[in-house]
Amino acid sequence: MSFDTSPEHYRHWTLDIDGEIAYLRLDVDENGGLVPGYELKMNSYDLGVDIELYDATQRLRFSHPAVRAVVITSAKDRNFCAGANIRMLAQSSHPWKVNFCKFTNETRNGIEDATAHSGQTYLAAVNGTAAGGGYELALACEQILLIDDNSSTVALPEVPLLGVLPGTGGLTRIIDKRRVRKDRADVFATKSEGLRGRQAVEWRLVDEVIPKRLWQEKIAERAAAAAARSPRPAADSGASGIELPPLQRTETDDGIDYRHVRARFDRDQGLVEITVFGPSGPGTNGVPDTVERIHELGAEFWPLAMTRELDDLILRLRANELELGTWLIRTTGDVEDAMAFERVIAQFSGTDWLVNEIRHYFKRVLKRLDVTSRSLVALIEPGSCFAGALLELALACDRQYMLDGLMEDGAEEGEPAQIVLSDSNFGTFPMSNGISRLASRFWGDEETVAKLRQEAGRRLDGAEALELGLVTDAPDDIDWDDEIRIMLEERASLSPDALTGMEANHRFVGPETMETRIFGRLSAWQNWIFVRPNASGEEGALRRFGTGRRAEFDRRRV
Amino acid sequence: MSFDTSPEHYRHWTLDIDGEIAYLRLDVDENGGLVPGYELKMNSYDLGVDIELYDATQRLRFSHPAVRAVVITSAKDRNFCAGANIRMLAQSSHPWKVNFCKFTNETRNGIEDATAHSGQTYLAAVNGTAAGGGYELALACEQILLIDDNSSTVALPEVPLLGVLPGTGGLTRIIDKRRVRKDRADVFATKSEGLRGRQAVEWRLVDEVIPKRLWQEKIAERAAAAAARSPRPAADSGASGIELPPLQRTETDDGIDYRHVRARFDRDQGLVEITVFGPSGPGTNGVPDTVERIHELGAEFWPLAMTRELDDLILRLRANELELGTWLIRTTGDVEDAMAFERVIAQFSGTDWLVNEIRHYFKRVLKRLDVTSRSLVALIEPGSCFAGALLELALACDRQYMLDGLMEDGAEEGEPAQIVLSDSNFGTFPMSNGISRLASRFWGDEETVAKLRQEAGRRLDGAEALELGLVTDAPDDIDWDDEIRIMLEERASLSPDALTGMEANHRFVGPETMETRIFGRLSAWQNWIFVRPNASGEEGALRRFGTGRRAEFDRRRV
Repeated sequence: MSFDTSPEHYRHWTLDIDGEIAYLRLDVDENGGLVPGYELKMNSYDLGVDIELYDATQRLRFSHPAVRAVVITSAKDRNFCAGANIRMLAQSSHPWKVNFCKFTNETRNGIEDATAHSGQTYLAAVNGTAAGGGYELALACEQILLIDDNSSTVALPEVPLLGVLPGTGGLTRIIDKRRVRKDRADVFATKSEGLRGRQAVEWRLVDEVIPKRLWQEKIAERAAAAAARSPRPAADSGASGIELPPLQRTETDDGIDYRHVRARFDRDQGLVEITVFGPSGPGTNGVPDTVERIHELGAEFWPLAMTRELDDLILRLRANELELGTWLIRTTGDVEDAMAFERVIAQFSGTDWLVNEIRHYFKRVLKRLDVTSRSLVALIEPGSCFAGALLELALACDRQYMLDGLMEDGAEEGEPAQIVLSDSNFGTFPMSNGISRLASRFWGDEETVAKLRQEAGRRLDGAEALELGLVTDAPDDIDWDDEIRIMLEERASLSPDALTGMEANHRFVGPETMETRIFGRLSAWQNWIFVRPNASGEEGALRRFGTGRRAEFDRRRV
Repeated sequence: MSFDTSPEHYRHWTLDIDGEIAYLRLDVDENGGLVPGYELKMNSYDLGVDIELYDATQRLRFSHPAVRAVVITSAKDRNFCAGANIRMLAQSSHPWKVNFCKFTNETRNGIEDATAHSGQTYLAAVNGTAAGGGYELALACEQILLIDDNSSTVALPEVPLLGVLPGTGGLTRIIDKRRVRKDRADVFATKSEGLRGRQAVEWRLVDEVIPKRLWQEKIAERAAAAAARSPRPAADSGASGIELPPLQRTETDDGIDYRHVRARFDRDQGLVEITVFGPSGPGTNGVPDTVERIHELGAEFWPLAMTRELDDLILRLRANELELGTWLIRTTGDVEDAMAFERVIAQFSGTDWLVNEIRHYFKRVLKRLDVTSRSLVALIEPGSCFAGALLELALACDRQYMLDGLMEDGAEEGEPAQIVLSDSNFGTFPMSNGISRLASRFWGDEETVAKLRQEAGRRLDGAEALELGLVTDAPDDIDWDDEIRIMLEERASLSPDALTGMEANHRFVGPETMETRIFGRLSAWQNWIFVRPNASGEEGALRRFGTGRRAEFDRRRV
């Protein structure tokens, strides 16, 4: 599985820019499924369709600073989007289904993130029936506009037709975001034909119903109004976007090499060793300190280049390397250089659209880590640069091990491992629960968080980091190898499912948001339902859909 | 399955009262398992053990007003409690495991409820190893005191030994209640041997480690200190408890009859028709308006009698009638009499310990409904008394149908159906999310909630209730029968698993608490893990435990 694409390669979407407004039109190629076995009828999607959508949302943010509103609509008559393709779901393995849902959820959260933080407001121009994942895509938009053509509806038919949940945020966004009453949500989510017209508005399922003859005009009006509210540079500001060229990547059986990120697979031990190279590494051009130079560097600018590579690596590992259950995360580089990223964010993310984008992109990639069903372990060793923003990588891990002092075998020179706290660790990159990883780590203990703020900027060695609660353990060179080896062996011996459930529970503490509910509650229920015979068995609803035979259910309620 | 018991029938617990302090000692009878196939070794438990614990917690609240602190400890040397019996789990069906976990979770939440609202503070005197569910029981107590005997530990060995989660609140309470750092929680929950001594205190897993020679003395001290802080009547106040006699119940194949609650089974349609009879029914003694008379009536007092019956019915239906997937809930009685319950609560629950207990008991029973994996539908018909507290029964449902007007067939006399809002609907009986069912229903719409407050006390007919958003629909007599019939048929045709997941997502909106996380997130993950071969398959960890053979895992991470 590859996540590479770009607009000239899209098979399922067209992206048109009209001044401040972008139009993303879904026009699924029936024969363009990612794997054989299904036809993508009625604008239904598989992962390939969603990879293009993700690519489009990213390029809109980075390459089109003048775009202030994005209209998602369909190029097919009377069919906005029928959601995830059922035959694809029916034939897919459980891990594939779960991973597919995770990615589509992340893309939809990204759409909301663009609306909230990029000044690119998404509107769903539902010009045909939006069913299941199709309506869930609309739910991720700030406004849902439905055509009044006496036939187009919005619907969540998953429960009645497929025996699964609207798991791409549907159940959650209905009640949490659109604040539909639970009894109406119950009626709606069990009514396969959906709702339209006045009732859809009254129930808050859509914001507006627009007569067919006024459709184009009203959509343009609503988009223009959204664009007018955007803090993004105006279309005539002369701001120019940056290109996102294809990533350079070398893949072998043993790993993946990017320019700033490296992954080595250890299949015997079931682990991946990931190293992020700091900005002092070769080819980074350092981290410049003027906005002009940052724009000039564009995708070469280390923070962005590294973030893109890390994003790609996470997606590839999640999709392709299911048995590599532990990710060891290291950094290599100069602490001071790493802090330069920090300073750029602090200085420009409030004023420069590109630096703002990079900040939020790194935030989203960190969030991907938070919901990755792999055991994450940070190894903080001499020569590492877990400082500021990069320290977030360690804090996202389930555990952090830091070498106290140097290895005494003489192989190493220089300083012992050090970490540095900065503003980045206190709110620049919030988790899905809306608070920082440190605030989550010390949930309910504001005193410690305040104390840690005092430490910002200071280099902390292993003993200090341990004392401050920033690392799980800080063995010295005598114990290091054994402790890490035993920890990894133990991890590899545990049930992969139990680890997934345990980590999902531990990683989110404190406040809950729509996002944590989608990943923590909705997805957990969906995982369960996906493996149940009532959905996935030979006689289950997913398999029987479209065969003309009704599903047969084990009627016991659990 | 019956949930009846009383202290003289306990096989696994002893309950001793010493003035203000009660001692609940776990002494599991190895041969006292609820069903054949396992021995309850090492103070491990099955549902039968937990039914006794639930009974004890209830009796402590109602029969022992002078008890202000409860010490949970073990009568067995060096063994506090080993948690849920593994062989029992391994041999149990999936629905049984899930239902067992739900009940044990409710009991532990009840322990926290007693500490918070009854002035009965629970202390765990961990005088031996507390493993898995044993430690989770301790986690439900306000304080965890661990004996320092150089061997006793606290541990959550589920993940490493059994391939399942500590699903009785363990993962949640560790991070949310005891605020253990997530990396430490990760270490702890993967370390089968657990922790003890200073480290257990430093990690906040226990509050205190007490040397063996000071054990009795210190426990008594800590309990006395907790008792001293209690708002419950002092031991010398002369307050006397009330007895909770065995429930009167007639069971047939077609239903269960209590005095104030009736259930009729319709096995063809997969539904139960539940009727709660209001205080005007036969044998209720009405609802008196003096505290003295309430105490005199004791368990005969209608609100308490009805609540006990409803509690028992919910538990029995959940355990015994898995295929009855829809519960239709009705009330019968006089609206004015129902409001008398209301007035008693409003007037005395702040000052009288017994009325306070009844209020919180009804709250807990409503919470059981909220997490019941059945479709709940309220039918509000002429002659019903969904007023105030009883209206909560309707609001707990997934849908509410109210007849607008009377049935025109002339069979009925009197008034059309009416409902009445009261203070009870605005915070007296909060859901697990900490807010009222109305605030959940209208989450984010404070204006509507404020408007509804203005309506308190007024009798609302079907049309008004519909207009105010209090019911899902209000058909008139022409449509009523068809609409209800079709709705029930549709419900019965849906996947039971999808309904469970959907309802669990819809019922909780807005704020999250430890309880909602336990039921919504932890339990959902556990449900999934329970059905996975890695846990429950022939080669899974649950089945292989104790056989000397290691589990074999599908190593793919999902």
